[in-house]
Amino acid sequence: MNRDDLINAIRTRMPEKRVVHTLGVMETAIRLAKVYGVSEQDAELAAILHDVVKFADREWMKQTIVEQQMDPILLNFHHELWHAPVGAYVAQQEFGVSNQDVLNAICYHTTGRANMTKLEKILYCADMIEPNRKFPGVDDLRQQDEQGLNELMKACVQRSIQFLMQKNQPVYPDSIHCYNDLVTRKEND
Amino acid sequence: MNRDDLINAIRTRMPEKRVVHTLGVMETAIRLAKVYGVSEQDAELAAILHDVVKFADREWMKQTIVEQQMDPILLNFHHELWHAPVGAYVAQQEFGVSNQDVLNAICYHTTGRANMTKLEKILYCADMIEPNRKFPGVDDLRQQDEQGLNELMKACVQRSIQFLMQKNQPVYPDSIHCYNDLVTRKEND
Repeated sequence: MNRDDLINAIRTRMPEKRVVHTLGVMETAIRLAKVYGVSEQDAELAAILHDVVKFADREWMKQTIVEQQMDPILLNFHHELWHAPVGAYVAQQEFGVSNQDVLNAICYHTTGRANMTKLEKILYCADMIEPNRKFPGVDDLRQQDEQGLNELMKACVQRSIQFLMQKNQPVYPDSIHCYNDLVTRKEND
Repeated sequence: MNRDDLINAIRTRMPEKRVVHTLGVMETAIRLAKVYGVSEQDAELAAILHDVVKFADREWMKQTIVEQQMDPILLNFHHELWHAPVGAYVAQQEFGVSNQDVLNAICYHTTGRANMTKLEKILYCADMIEPNRKFPGVDDLRQQDEQGLNELMKACVQRSIQFLMQKNQPVYPDSIHCYNDLVTRKEND
């Protein structure tokens, strides 16, 4: 499938507002991919499909998590987290994506994890800072872009954890592993 | 050992300022124990010994963590965390403490963990809000005391995690498990 076919395919699965967001993520991910030496095609593919099941039936997602033997602790957390690993599954099963890095980028785009690849970080950050996002502090995050991918990623995951804690919402352990990984590593890629 | 003997014993292991802190933790822990129906003797014992190895040799603490087969990921985190589990070990070995709840309260007084007992929560919170503590926001924490032990504990662990994140310091996973446990449980003891 080319870009237009993929975008048309996701249009049947989400409202227009989410399509606009997806296109913003795509543009931002491609820009970051250029800056950080990652395949633009991979960034484009991961971005277009990252929210493919965002509006899918919740019970079906739950069932998929169980049947596909995804991490069962997902079910103890907010269903908002489920669309990422289930989206990776659908990208593989229905869209024939076989590139594991693209699938992982989709899988971890909501929680992050330790030892993320550049593509995984790019999708996570693009999802948070794409031009249509308007939450308080988003411009500060966008400025971290100039400090390198790890600094941008750190700022984004910190913001996500702090946001959840302000709302008394649980924090998925992978997000803390992601944060810990970023604050303890020295290199900056 | 009675209270005075214990206090004299810890005086040889820490500077006066830390003894004053310890006595503040003891008073606060006893007060909370009365409010929440926990043995005051247990609270007193845990409080007096909670920082018993705070000023012990760092290499010796590292060696003890390894030899006593404590969680090896401790060694990936700041040595500030080591004195809690090593303190529990010393409380047992040198002070003859056999009450597992008291030992666990000492062991988890810095990180917290999921499914804490009342005594564990009391020591964690008393350590943070005792009268000699003067950090920004400590009075807000003290006021949470009126909302019940879980609310106080939640506020304390949230503050601890946010403080670490503001300093770009790693967060020990048990602290997030503790926070997640508190924000997802319904009862309030």
